[in-house]
Amino acid sequence: MGVSVNETQQIVIIGGGAGGSTAAQFARKTNRSATIILFEKGPYPQYSKCGLPYAIAGVVPQFQDLIEFSEEWFKKEHIDLHLNTTVEHINLDQRTIAARKGKELIEQQFDTLILATGAHPWIPPLQHIENNTHLLNGVFSLRTIHDGQQIQSHIQKGKKATVIGAGLIGLEMADCLSRKGMKVTVVEALPTILANTLDDDLSKQVQQQLEEKITILTNHRALRAEEQNGTISSLLIRNPETGEDTTIPTDLLVIATGTKPETTLAQSIGCTIGKTKAIQINEKAATSIPGVYAVGDCTEYKDFITNEPLCIGLGSIVVRQAIAAGTNAAGGTYTLPPGVLLTRTSEFFDIEIAAVGPIEHQLTNMPVIAARYTGSSLPEYFPGKETITMKVCIHEDTGVLLSAQAVGANAAQRINTLACAILRHTPVDDFKKLETAYAPPIAPTLDPVTLVCDVASLKRVRKRRGQ
Amino acid sequence: MGVSVNETQQIVIIGGGAGGSTAAQFARKTNRSATIILFEKGPYPQYSKCGLPYAIAGVVPQFQDLIEFSEEWFKKEHIDLHLNTTVEHINLDQRTIAARKGKELIEQQFDTLILATGAHPWIPPLQHIENNTHLLNGVFSLRTIHDGQQIQSHIQKGKKATVIGAGLIGLEMADCLSRKGMKVTVVEALPTILANTLDDDLSKQVQQQLEEKITILTNHRALRAEEQNGTISSLLIRNPETGEDTTIPTDLLVIATGTKPETTLAQSIGCTIGKTKAIQINEKAATSIPGVYAVGDCTEYKDFITNEPLCIGLGSIVVRQAIAAGTNAAGGTYTLPPGVLLTRTSEFFDIEIAAVGPIEHQLTNMPVIAARYTGSSLPEYFPGKETITMKVCIHEDTGVLLSAQAVGANAAQRINTLACAILRHTPVDDFKKLETAYAPPIAPTLDPVTLVCDVASLKRVRKRRGQ
Repeated sequence: MGVSVNETQQIVIIGGGAGGSTAAQFARKTNRSATIILFEKGPYPQYSKCGLPYAIAGVVPQFQDLIEFSEEWFKKEHIDLHLNTTVEHINLDQRTIAARKGKELIEQQFDTLILATGAHPWIPPLQHIENNTHLLNGVFSLRTIHDGQQIQSHIQKGKKATVIGAGLIGLEMADCLSRKGMKVTVVEALPTILANTLDDDLSKQVQQQLEEKITILTNHRALRAEEQNGTISSLLIRNPETGEDTTIPTDLLVIATGTKPETTLAQSIGCTIGKTKAIQINEKAATSIPGVYAVGDCTEYKDFITNEPLCIGLGSIVVRQAIAAGTNAAGGTYTLPPGVLLTRTSEFFDIEIAAVGPIEHQLTNMPVIAARYTGSSLPEYFPGKETITMKVCIHEDTGVLLSAQAVGANAAQRINTLACAILRHTPVDDFKKLETAYAPPIAPTLDPVTLVCDVASLKRVRKRRGQ
Repeated sequence: MGVSVNETQQIVIIGGGAGGSTAAQFARKTNRSATIILFEKGPYPQYSKCGLPYAIAGVVPQFQDLIEFSEEWFKKEHIDLHLNTTVEHINLDQRTIAARKGKELIEQQFDTLILATGAHPWIPPLQHIENNTHLLNGVFSLRTIHDGQQIQSHIQKGKKATVIGAGLIGLEMADCLSRKGMKVTVVEALPTILANTLDDDLSKQVQQQLEEKITILTNHRALRAEEQNGTISSLLIRNPETGEDTTIPTDLLVIATGTKPETTLAQSIGCTIGKTKAIQINEKAATSIPGVYAVGDCTEYKDFITNEPLCIGLGSIVVRQAIAAGTNAAGGTYTLPPGVLLTRTSEFFDIEIAAVGPIEHQLTNMPVIAARYTGSSLPEYFPGKETITMKVCIHEDTGVLLSAQAVGANAAQRINTLACAILRHTPVDDFKKLETAYAPPIAPTLDPVTLVCDVASLKRVRKRRGQ
């Protein structure tokens, strides 16, 4: 990179997920001669956590296929990878860490430190869910290959599965379990599914489509697990509005109610913890402690539109933070964008959804106009066309695009175009000028991505006229 | 639209294709009480010309399915549609047109006039191709439903078809004829296929893939058609470099060597004709004659990047010009963007290609850096991943994106993101900040659309350092 680097520099990374491993990769790109040591408490080098539902479903043949940074890769890059090794203590004065690998104790000096400690599943308070501090047999969260293998071994065709949580991962797991022939019920405490990704209007539309395949119980809190011979047999849930309780027989329970950032080590050395209970980082991916960086699911960074802190474990964001942390920890310079766009997508039961930025009801501190458009993904006459629904939020005063949502064909790539527009502070009227690629088997003459902007533009004109 | 409009205004539109019909639609939206009359020389109201290859192939079941503005629609909108009616004369002083419908002569006053006269196929000088001014039996161009029906009726499974011209339409027709079981040869005079859409490097890659399915002869000029009993039997072609002649036996010949703008009427009233031999229009879609507008394939408008005039028959551009012409001719105000982005796409033999802006060798008046990236459309471990190749051209001094090309999965939607960036004069380095939507079944963590920009960014840094 042509920067001046310390040839004997020692860089220690705690955590070997996408954040830690990508940070190691970019530290190495920045400083070819530094000593780089990565400690990972699990038995595998970096693998795609997002890929777990597809390995459980058998879409990806083997769990090991999810490994993206192999042990060979670490060797080739001269990065010391310690698997099954837990960092127990950081001594900031001595600039050392103490780690345990089985019975072996390791002490390691560092010049710079990267915390990539990730997150752990948040398990809601649920009676009888635990059995001697372990989850009851047949009850799982999904975070590791081990979790995935356990779920896979408990899948029984024709039997009943329940998922608590109707976010992206909950619905990906519902799809996975349904593909494997289980009868799936999803329980969600909030009134709508995908509450962080889609506003109610789009969310309801997706829910209707999903209900053709699975049972969804929104507005229901999980209260208690019942067991039979040490294995879960049913789940008691309550509708807090009506007070009504329901017992759902279930042979397998997956808890997908989100995660909590793992910040124990960060707190032990005094890193500032933010509103979301995650480690605050700045645009260099640096924590409040000099020489200590942090990346990924254990961190918070501000939202591009609202400036509010977000703790987001999206791979695309983690990787960018890791490029920054790795490069900067090794003496280079990499600056993060001035906020997280929060571009996100998923697919379940053949429905593609995507979004960028805050949803409408999160945009509370500014005057917002929201517009929706439903149309065809192809010209009306073309076979195989799909319905696509898009929504955009714009700033009422400036007309600038703030956020967008999409459900249907190529939702993700269409949202990418709007993400680019948001990054460039684009007024919605500019979409009148945007020629999109048109060919009958690919897209209609005017793409939904521009037509939803036309609706927003018109709504704004009318609102400003007081109509 | 809230503008002041002339209630007794008479708007005459010549040509009922996408340009003329969309202009009529927007004229009506702008002025609910104007008299709007549309003259179309063919027997059908507006239909999708781009859809013809898919109707010939039977992908779209009926040619009539391609009709997008039905006769009923025109009635409902109170637009007088005259089919089978040819406008023969415009009298600018009297502000009248004279049209012929069979034996009937129609004279019609106008306040404003919209020329949407389209284009006709350009047939290269080719011996024996004509037979009493008509094309030889078995020889076709593709412009109308009639052409499509004729081609369809000549298709014979197992027989040989030849296409002259390896542009988008030539290759769409090659795909169509191949699907119908014909053995297809494509003859192209230029050294590469898709010469207006892809640079040589990407074009060669596509050609290799196509050659698994069809024969492609680049660098070959068609010289002469041979006939048997009044029907084409073979085509004589020459390689001008080697002087070698080859005879290709063929049972069906499709000529797809481009079009010529139809400007006879425009010239008769003195509209300025530009460099491309098409009618010059400004950002209001107005010609040089007051009150006379023009849209679509008969017009030229400047390129967004080079400012050079382009005569482009792309549906997405035609529709925008028509919105402008229809709105402005009816007393409203609609301004076109300051140039054509030239976003384009097509798909043949399951290869999706797309581009935006001039290709590299057309960017001669500025210092350009071109960068290419080939990668996977999905994470490496995910089944069904496809190779995608992208190319971007950036301005060496400013780093601003100028144009882009893509071959592979979702090429069109990926190019839309770059089209948005080009419209917003985005420096390529901004793509380091663009989070794209990531999920294993949908896209990789870092999308090719950002990775190709990373390559360009790095090439620019190196070039400016003199490396």
